[in-house]
This record gives sequence, structure tokens and C-alpha cells, in this order.
Amino acid sequence: MTASGSDSPTSPTARLVARMLDGDRLALARVITRVENRTPEVPAIMRAVHARAGRAYVLGVTGPPGAGKSTLVDRLTTRLRATGHPVGIVAVDPSSPFSGGAVLGDRIRMQTHTLDPGVFIRSMATRGSLGGLARATGDVIRLLDAFGFDWIIIETVGVGQTELDIIRQADTTVVALVPESGDSIQAMKAGLMEVADVFVVNKADRPGAHALMAELRFSVHLHYTSRASSKDVDWEVPVLSAEAAQDVGIDALLDAVMRHRSVLEQAGALGTRRQARRRAELEALLVEEFSAQVMARVRTDHELGRTLQAVIDGSLDPYTAVAQILARTLRTEPT
Amino acid sequence: MTASGSDSPTSPTARLVARMLDGDRLALARVITRVENRTPEVPAIMRAVHARAGRAYVLGVTGPPGAGKSTLVDRLTTRLRATGHPVGIVAVDPSSPFSGGAVLGDRIRMQTHTLDPGVFIRSMATRGSLGGLARATGDVIRLLDAFGFDWIIIETVGVGQTELDIIRQADTTVVALVPESGDSIQAMKAGLMEVADVFVVNKADRPGAHALMAELRFSVHLHYTSRASSKDVDWEVPVLSAEAAQDVGIDALLDAVMRHRSVLEQAGALGTRRQARRRAELEALLVEEFSAQVMARVRTDHELGRTLQAVIDGSLDPYTAVAQILARTLRTEPT
Repeated sequence: MTASGSDSPTSPTARLVARMLDGDRLALARVITRVENRTPEVPAIMRAVHARAGRAYVLGVTGPPGAGKSTLVDRLTTRLRATGHPVGIVAVDPSSPFSGGAVLGDRIRMQTHTLDPGVFIRSMATRGSLGGLARATGDVIRLLDAFGFDWIIIETVGVGQTELDIIRQADTTVVALVPESGDSIQAMKAGLMEVADVFVVNKADRPGAHALMAELRFSVHLHYTSRASSKDVDWEVPVLSAEAAQDVGIDALLDAVMRHRSVLEQAGALGTRRQARRRAELEALLVEEFSAQVMARVRTDHELGRTLQAVIDGSLDPYTAVAQILARTLRTEPT
Repeated sequence: MTASGSDSPTSPTARLVARMLDGDRLALARVITRVENRTPEVPAIMRAVHARAGRAYVLGVTGPPGAGKSTLVDRLTTRLRATGHPVGIVAVDPSSPFSGGAVLGDRIRMQTHTLDPGVFIRSMATRGSLGGLARATGDVIRLLDAFGFDWIIIETVGVGQTELDIIRQADTTVVALVPESGDSIQAMKAGLMEVADVFVVNKADRPGAHALMAELRFSVHLHYTSRASSKDVDWEVPVLSAEAAQDVGIDALLDAVMRHRSVLEQAGALGTRRQARRRAELEALLVEEFSAQVMARVRTDHELGRTLQAVIDGSLDPYTAVAQILARTLRTEPT
């Protein structure tokens, strides 16, 4: 967090960032790797690109495994490219020994766009550290934004808190389901309802699609009528159908995304939501850095070390310890 | 967080806590309500009960909705009661307009034990605030511990990050699945593997039970052989079957729990894990309180307020802002 050599305009990192901002895709990929690995240069990198970011529109696509998210993203990307927009894609895959195959398969399917210089695709995995993944994803979105992608698509599996934290960084979120997800979505329904701006039932030629759509429409309507007064925009989440593999339903899906964007912009809600997101991001980063600094201090400050040890061995309750630690580390308020 | 009147031994809260520690169940219930509502008395309450806690063994039971967790808990409770142990049960239910019915049903099923003074059952819901729920659950566990329950069972739905945070407070965790959960558990498999000390396939008379057990045994064995060297105890997670509604398989399940407890205790791992948990709890509480104090200070300190506003309106990057805020709020390290 302290100023490092990479702040200097002639440092290797500063030169790499400058090349990235000049449009060098290889430099972009290398900067992303540093941000993903949470190297000490991250603050300097993010400071350097900040002024160039803030123009992209961020589309989130989430849903359970097997919902065909990658194919949907692929088809949406084709549509956006047809209108000339450069598209950056961040696919966030929970790292698990069980999902490795699927991840590879997904990326192979996206090969449609590998020769198109207007498309940039990046996969990110948890690598065992869930905590930093949402922040790393946010930083990568900002890098793609600063690089000049008008549209950024985040694709993630919509299950846990981390995935919700990731998808909340989108301006518009599409939740993809398939008829087979019927039962399994019950558990995550509250979370999906909270993040969905558009529902799409993919593989809609399969049995159960109509029932799932009817169920979703009912839930959406309940949610809409119960929350309408507290929402910043008047938007009842549409429930669409698609067969992405056959390119069916994609125009209507993109149209719904565009309508949602337009509603957000006209209501002034896009700016308000981005402000709230920046505030939440600052708070998360602040406590993370505070925690790192206090824990570093515990190693050299014997009194803090004793307090920590007393909590660890169970002789001191954590509430008393927190009061002691804050009294020792926080400045008294300036008068 | 500051010392309040409730620290005084004659305050109403102190008297309530004293009655609780004397064995008054009504006082216990009222203290739990205060802790659950995160009232300002929480630090004083937790300080007052601290010395009395630390003796209970905490059993976690988690799994997807419909896995029969409540019935399993009910049957396990009967067995533990037969050996004379008082049992405290905390059922944590994600708050959702869709699960209200199920929660009520679960609690009604537990009526077997309502007339038994050696059993105390408490349901906790998110009430929309996920952040504080894991901490509140931890505090309630400590209250039950201080009250004198030898066994405390936490029951929760194993889906998101919050539920994992809750279940990590258990010494031994049973993950319950049913044949129908086959597909839906794929997404949460990594998380379940991480927390499970014992798997039980409930409703094992249904089709698919054998296949699910074989699949779990394969996954468990993979996990065991790949992680064995990094584990603090030599324990390959058993995969059991049960039909809780028919009281089948419960003895073997409790036996597995007892064997896991014994392995933890003999390896000295129980103490080590509890220490790690206390440390993690301190860190979480510390950043939460720090965040609250800094955000309160932002309202009165104009320079901090300007920094925050610059981040919100997008003119300042959050990394620079965090460095500024910490420089203004943290004491320089004592030399």
C-alpha cells in the first residue's frame, strides 16, 4: 500500500501500464495477471488507469452450472460486435477439482471470437482464495474499461456469496437457468431474485421450460409488487426463453438488456448505483488494509501481541480485546 | 463498544445475565434475543459470560433444503439426552419469503423435546442482514455454552458463504444429503467437501442413494489422498446412510461423530482449531468495529468526508483513498 518504485513513470510496471493504455493487448494481459495475483504493484496500477476508466457498461451473466452461460455470452458478444462495440469478457470460475473440465470446455467454445481483436476474453479462478476474488474481478473490469472496451461481460456461476459479490459489480445482470435447474435453484432463489435484472430460461425446448418460466414470472411479480416502492427504478424483471446453441432468443435477450440500461440511465439510477458500488468497494478495501496493517503491528507491538494471544487461548473475550486494540491503534479524533 | 451502564453489576442487563448464569431459561432466552438483535449491550453480555464458556462440544448439521436435517437433529438429540447430556440447538434459517413455511414445519417437528428441560431450541433468521448472522450465531453458541449445555447443535442450510461461516463454528460437522440432491450439490460440492467431517445420505431407501454414496466416497477419498499431508488429523470422512424418519442409521451417525471428536482430541487438534477460530473471530470483529468507527468519523472529519466523496463520485481511486484514510486515522507505530 505504501508508495513503491512502480509509481515512478519509468518503472517497469509504469511502462507496462503505459503500453496497455496505448492499446497493447499483450501488455493488458500482463497487467491483468499482476492484478489477479494481487502483487504489491496493484495500488500503483489502479491509480494509473483510474482516469481512463468509467465509460464501459458492465453486463453480468450468472446462473447454475450447465445453464449454458458461456454460449449465451458467446452469442451476445457476436451481436455486440456486429454493432462495432469492442467487448471484454471476464469469466470467473470457482476453482474446484471437479469443475476443471467444464472450464476448459467453456473456453474452447468461445473460440469463435479468438481471432477478433475487438474481443478480449479472460478466465479468472479462485485459486483457493475467495476473499480477494471479487476485488480482483472489480479491478480487472476497470482495466478493461480503461483499455477501451465499451461493453464488459462478467460471467460467473451464481451460487455463493463470493459469486454474488462479483456479479453485483455489473450494471445489468442476466440470470440464466435451464429447465433442469428447477429444484436446485430453490436454495439460491432469494439470492438470484436479488441480482436478476433479466431472467432467461435457456435450452427452452426441453421439458419443464414452460413450468419454470411460469414459476419465475410468478416469483418476479411477487418480488416486484412487494419491493416496487423501495426500488430506484420501475422495472419488472422480464422472463425470457432462449436456445443459445441454436441462436434462438438472443435478439430479445439483448433487447431486454438494452431496455434495462435505458431505464437505469433515464432514472439517473446508473450513476447512483455506481456511486454506491464505489463506496462499498472503498469500505471493503479499507477494512482489508486496516486488518493487514494491524496484524503486521501485532508482530512488533508486544502489548497488542499479548491481547491477541489472550483471545487465542480463550482467557479474554473478543469484544474487550477489540476495544483495547482500537484504543491502541486509532488516533483520537482531531478536535 | 464503549463501556456502558450495562457493565455495572446492578444494571438490568447484568442482573438478567446473572439470572441466566444461575440456570434461568427465560433469562437465557431474553439474553439471546438481545444478542441476536445486536443491541449495544452485546459486548458487556459477552464479557460477563466469557469465563463460563468453553466446555461445550459443538456439532454442526448442514445440507441442502429437504435433506431432513431437522429430523436428524431431533434423533441425535434423543440419543444425547439418553446419556444425560443437556443439548442446546441453534437452527439458523436463511430469511426468505419462500422458506417461511419450511422453517415453521421444522420447528414443529422438534416438539418431541419441548417438554424436556435438558433441551433448549432456538431458531435464528437472517432478518435481511447476512453480515452479522455468523457473529450472532457464534455469540449464541457461547451463551448456551456458558449456560451449561454439554452439546450444542447448529443446524443450517449449507449453501452460501454465510452458512459456511456459521457451520465453521462447529467442532464436528455432519453434511446431510438426500438422493435427490445429486445434481444440485455439484455447485456447492467444493464448499461441502471443505466443511464435512461426516457425510450422511438421508432418506437412503429412495432410488439413487447407492449411486450418491458411491460418488461421495469417491470424492471423499480423492480429497483425503490429495489433502492428507496438510491435515492436522488423519481422518477420512465417512459416508453413512440413514432414514432419520424411521430412526434408522442414527446410532452409526452418532458413533461417527464421537469417533471424530475423539480423533480431534487425541491429536490435540480440537484445541488448535478452537484457537484458530477465536483468532478469526477477533479479526472479523476488529474490522467490523474499525469500519463502524471510521465511518462515524467521516461524518465529523471534513477531510475524511472529502476523500470519501471523491471516491464516490469517481474522481479518486479507492487505493489512494485507503492510504489517505489510514494515514489520518491510524496512530503511527509506537517506537
